[in-house]
Amino acid sequence: MRIKIINPNTNEQMTRTIDAAAKQYRRQDTQITTVSLNSGPPVIDSSYDEALAAAGILQEVKVGLHEKFDGFIIACFSDPALQASKEISTAPVVGIGEASMLLACTIAYKFAIISMPKSAVSSMRALVASYGLESRCASVRMIDLSVGKLETELPKIKRLFLCEGREAIAEGAETILLGCAGLSGLDKEFEKELRIPVIDGVVAAVKLLESLHDYGINTSKILTYRTPQRF
Amino acid sequence: MRIKIINPNTNEQMTRTIDAAAKQYRRQDTQITTVSLNSGPPVIDSSYDEALAAAGILQEVKVGLHEKFDGFIIACFSDPALQASKEISTAPVVGIGEASMLLACTIAYKFAIISMPKSAVSSMRALVASYGLESRCASVRMIDLSVGKLETELPKIKRLFLCEGREAIAEGAETILLGCAGLSGLDKEFEKELRIPVIDGVVAAVKLLESLHDYGINTSKILTYRTPQRF
Amino acid sequence: MRIKIINPNTNEQMTRTIDAAAKQYRRQDTQITTVSLNSGPPVIDSSYDEALAAAGILQEVKVGLHEKFDGFIIACFSDPALQASKEISTAPVVGIGEASMLLACTIAYKFAIISMPKSAVSSMRALVASYGLESRCASVRMIDLSVGKLETELPKIKRLFLCEGREAIAEGAETILLGCAGLSGLDKEFEKELRIPVIDGVVAAVKLLESLHDYGINTSKILTYRTPQRF
Amino acid sequence: MRIKIINPNTNEQMTRTIDAAAKQYRRQDTQITTVSLNSGPPVIDSSYDEALAAAGILQEVKVGLHEKFDGFIIACFSDPALQASKEISTAPVVGIGEASMLLACTIAYKFAIISMPKSAVSSMRALVASYGLESRCASVRMIDLSVGKLETELPKIKRLFLCEGREAIAEGAETILLGCAGLSGLDKEFEKELRIPVIDGVVAAVKLLESLHDYGINTSKILTYRTPQRF
Amino acid sequence: MRIKIINPNTNEQMTRTIDAAAKQYRRQDTQITTVSLNSGPPVIDSSYDEALAAAGILQEVKVGLHEKFDGFIIACFSDPALQASKEISTAPVVGIGEASMLLACTIAYKFAIISMPKSAVSSMRALVASYGLESRCASVRMIDLSVGKLETELPKIKRLFLCEGREAIAEGAETILLGCAGLSGLDKEFEKELRIPVIDGVVAAVKLLESLHDYGINTSKILTYRTPQRF
Amino acid sequence: MRIKIINPNTNEQMTRTIDAAAKQYRRQDTQITTVSLNSGPPVIDSSYDEALAAAGILQEVKVGLHEKFDGFIIACFSDPALQASKEISTAPVVGIGEASMLLACTIAYKFAIISMPKSAVSSMRALVASYGLESRCASVRMIDLSVGKLETELPKIKRLFLCEGREAIAEGAETILLGCAGLSGLDKEFEKELRIPVIDGVVAAVKLLESLHDYGINTSKILTYRTPQRF
Repeated sequence: MRIKIINPNTNEQMTRTIDAAAKQYRRQDTQITTVSLNSGPPVIDSSYDEALAAAGILQEVKVGLHEKFDGFIIACFSDPALQASKEISTAPVVGIGEASMLLACTIAYKFAIISMPKSAVSSMRALVASYGLESRCASVRMIDLSVGKLETELPKIKRLFLCEGREAIAEGAETILLGCAGLSGLDKEFEKELRIPVIDGVVAAVKLLESLHDYGINTSKILTYRTPQRF
Repeated sequence: MRIKIINPNTNEQMTRTIDAAAKQYRRQDTQITTVSLNSGPPVIDSSYDEALAAAGILQEVKVGLHEKFDGFIIACFSDPALQASKEISTAPVVGIGEASMLLACTIAYKFAIISMPKSAVSSMRALVASYGLESRCASVRMIDLSVGKLETELPKIKRLFLCEGREAIAEGAETILLGCAGLSGLDKEFEKELRIPVIDGVVAAVKLLESLHDYGINTSKILTYRTPQRF
Repeated sequence: MRIKIINPNTNEQMTRTIDAAAKQYRRQDTQITTVSLNSGPPVIDSSYDEALAAAGILQEVKVGLHEKFDGFIIACFSDPALQASKEISTAPVVGIGEASMLLACTIAYKFAIISMPKSAVSSMRALVASYGLESRCASVRMIDLSVGKLETELPKIKRLFLCEGREAIAEGAETILLGCAGLSGLDKEFEKELRIPVIDGVVAAVKLLESLHDYGINTSKILTYRTPQRF
Repeated sequence: MRIKIINPNTNEQMTRTIDAAAKQYRRQDTQITTVSLNSGPPVIDSSYDEALAAAGILQEVKVGLHEKFDGFIIACFSDPALQASKEISTAPVVGIGEASMLLACTIAYKFAIISMPKSAVSSMRALVASYGLESRCASVRMIDLSVGKLETELPKIKRLFLCEGREAIAEGAETILLGCAGLSGLDKEFEKELRIPVIDGVVAAVKLLESLHDYGINTSKILTYRTPQRF
Repeated sequence: MRIKIINPNTNEQMTRTIDAAAKQYRRQDTQITTVSLNSGPPVIDSSYDEALAAAGILQEVKVGLHEKFDGFIIACFSDPALQASKEISTAPVVGIGEASMLLACTIAYKFAIISMPKSAVSSMRALVASYGLESRCASVRMIDLSVGKLETELPKIKRLFLCEGREAIAEGAETILLGCAGLSGLDKEFEKELRIPVIDGVVAAVKLLESLHDYGINTSKILTYRTPQRF
Repeated sequence: MRIKIINPNTNEQMTRTIDAAAKQYRRQDTQITTVSLNSGPPVIDSSYDEALAAAGILQEVKVGLHEKFDGFIIACFSDPALQASKEISTAPVVGIGEASMLLACTIAYKFAIISMPKSAVSSMRALVASYGLESRCASVRMIDLSVGKLETELPKIKRLFLCEGREAIAEGAETILLGCAGLSGLDKEFEKELRIPVIDGVVAAVKLLESLHDYGINTSKILTYRTPQRF
């Protein structure tokens, strides 16, 4: 199958990071194409950034439908424009937030999310709640730095992540989700330190799309994700 | 005080409807300016429409801040781009969805929302849940027509609204919220028929902004609505 | 409009405090009359005190209806006899607990309540839950002193309030509610120290009643607040 | 043990009904004394009636403490003044609402409450929620007649009760609670018709008080039910 | 009445402990018979142990029905095979987990459970949730030792229990439940130290069975506990 | 990878049905082995049947670990002994109930479960709740026939299934889950009739196990699924 991954910002390095993570765990017959937005926020740090990215994400979905992709991934943990993408797409669309939470539920009773920056904590909890998974979430913990700092302050962010990870385990977390696409590829490194499974949502999303494709099931168009009349 | 109301679509007739409702109940020293988006969806029927409207809404807030407005209203019941607007605005921002639900809680134990089209039902319930008000909501009922039909099929929509209103009352609703800005101004007409209070979110939002202004309190910028670094 | 504020105890100094707070933020055409109970508890420290105050509160509402007031405020954060008052009143009745929580939701995602004494913590949480607002409440924190100590130990209580306020912020609170009518008037002083909005429920209640009056909507009498046959 | 049952209204016939039900299922060494209020509402139909009854209930508890009763029952399904009574009493106090719900949970996964009048439906649901038992409650159904009609329209009320009972079973109820003390004594008659267990809260409360007495445990005074300083 | 208590493991000392606690608080006309399983786990430390014990528990219920017992108690706080037992039994069956939680609700607003080992914490919270009592539970705290250590390390376990009990009180607990049948009989000793009521589920279950017996009500067989066709 | 599917009853025809469904959608490099229990209930109709099957399921997991399987599926929608299996297994274990619910969440906002017999409705709802997915479940609907009737009354059961499916859609279901392993293989047939996606949990479980295997993540052993000391 052919999967298009949409990195909903203009950060090319992050796009490469995401692409590498997806390709590492894809099945042999899965093709991955990862794109950045042509214009939009450099990183997603706020609801404002999400709102600005929305039109660009949807544009990439539309283009991708013409290019006959078999599935789409929105590669930002807050799952921006996910519902709108599911509405307009005739192929399955998965967000890395939803994918990592759902997959986590098969291997742990409680997961934790470690994300950034701190101001996103309410949105993150609201996301978990909107998926109905509050009782499966032991902890939402934030690193209070802009996602943009991933390029320049990675060692510090890794250290803070492990710190928050240990706190999350003390709060009952049994698996940790990388709460930001920019952290993609660090799962196994963190897993070695924290000694519990760490899940990269990009990988989770690839695996879920492959599952849907194998099974031949697609987004239900009967109600919530009904195709808009105009688009 | 000076309030800017943003109708998040390009429909001028709806803008006039909203403006009239707001002006009918404003205090004498309140000035109302209602605008449509320059570009965007003709009406908001889906998450896709909401996503497309987001950038335009935020642009209107930014322009309005330069114009020194004292408060903003986003005049679509699904409160699109509300969190992002609260992030970037130095003046209070209120959505007509949140305003009508909060005001309803002072006069009734349970409210009902009657909105359109049917495919928005999950989003509407998710909105209520995100505000924490599920236990105050007796019923979310939908008219399965595009919001665009308000211009051409108003009598039919009024009839369907009353029908759903009666069902909502049977389900325990004690007040009915007009679940679409396009229904603005019909509150008292429906109230007469249904014999319980009917709330127009546009009016509720004006009154809440006036209340915040009188009291001199503004959006808390400490966490969820922290001002983005870039905007 | 003419608003009657009922301080549900016999403490005259608290009545003056409440009256002053209400008058500071009322609109010019709003008249405020604040009364104490003729008999009842000196302050409200327990459910027992609330139960004892109930008959007196309802008596003041009944008298106020004959005096043609346009709205009533019950000025105790635990909103004693609020439902009963809404049942018997033909004019809107607002409690300062409900008013401050609802207004808080327009300026913050999560509020905290700081109240007294400690034994009321379960009742306070139950109140929040009964309004459906658990997910909007970051923290309920208590000062373990009788409300009666407000007269003699105000400096200590202020110090404890700020202490609890800082803890509440650390727990995610974005606005603080004065959880006791006896704290009325201290909002701006605390706000200066805590640097997030602080809400006085007496003011919130006045503004909400003015909003309802302007809009011309009143308590729904169809179900929960149906007028009793005997009263 | 010696149990004082407080019928929180002035209706002597209801007091006799309650007394008879309690005595039918008491243990041999349990003495039952059932009293009406000296003054107060003739029946409890509303929150207003509950508020008016509160002072009288507390007075009866205080008198009962002097009379050395070993336990108290508040015999109205809405459990008026129950928390206040637990605060001031040195002996256990049980409400017939809480007692019937808790006992029901041992014999059924889901219970239903059938009460009266209809306007109390929100209060009744709020009561269930305040006890944390929403997920155990299949249905709250109301007969829309004043409790006062029990004397004059009993056959009609019985017919309506069975009607609602059958609806409740269709909604998943596995046991039915008599949602009004005035229905005391009809449990076995209804049980024969509905063919599922029917619980009389008066009996449930007697059995729970006997259980607490045998076990020698009493209300926890550490927080919620702390003894008030003044009473 | 004749009660059969099933200790769902093969530990004879625990059976004697349970038997003693039950007999200490039984009514004079209640006969208690306590049995261990013939084969099964030595103690219940995990879901695996619970699963292994299930068939043996059901066998003891079946034998007990032939022996004409009037009620059954499953004496393990996690209430293993409780629903299955209620399905097959014609007499009431009560688990010590459910019994202690329900009885606790009459004397405290919030209870805490102190159990063992730590890995059972999610199961314990899930049990509380399945009974609908999350909002009544202040805290679930675990001692991280196998239940099997009760024989050899009792002094240490007592010390840890009191430690966790004090933490639970700080978290708002008003009564403490002995979260393991092996702790039976220590209620009053812990109560003296912690100065709040401590509940032994074995006693609670005996008292609830006696209550059901006196009242003549039995498990509802209409839905959840319908008798299986084959057994 | 090599997957062992455990049909937790002794019904060979159901085992063949399950095996066929799993093999239809497995990847080429996945080997499926499906087994029945040697002894146990003929079908799972009740909690009693589940309890009886538990030991046999765990025995099959243990044997499978010696046979070096890479993953296990418990093929009964009520996920019997799932937690215990996760505790003892060093390879991932997935239940068809959890698998179908989690996969459903990627393609629909709300799913419905159609299962049998009617008495299992509370257990089924409790299962959904224990996974935290109540808000994603539009409806749990039951066919009131023993699972054993699948062999002899399949046409009737199919007709009833479609009937319930249409009701579920009216209640907001966007995808239907086959709530019984005995219905395996009927997904596409029902999908054609109902015109919304229908999910077979056996297939969902296979795809999730393959996903976990590809990604190289396994059950977290830190807390809930800690390996028992004895087994």
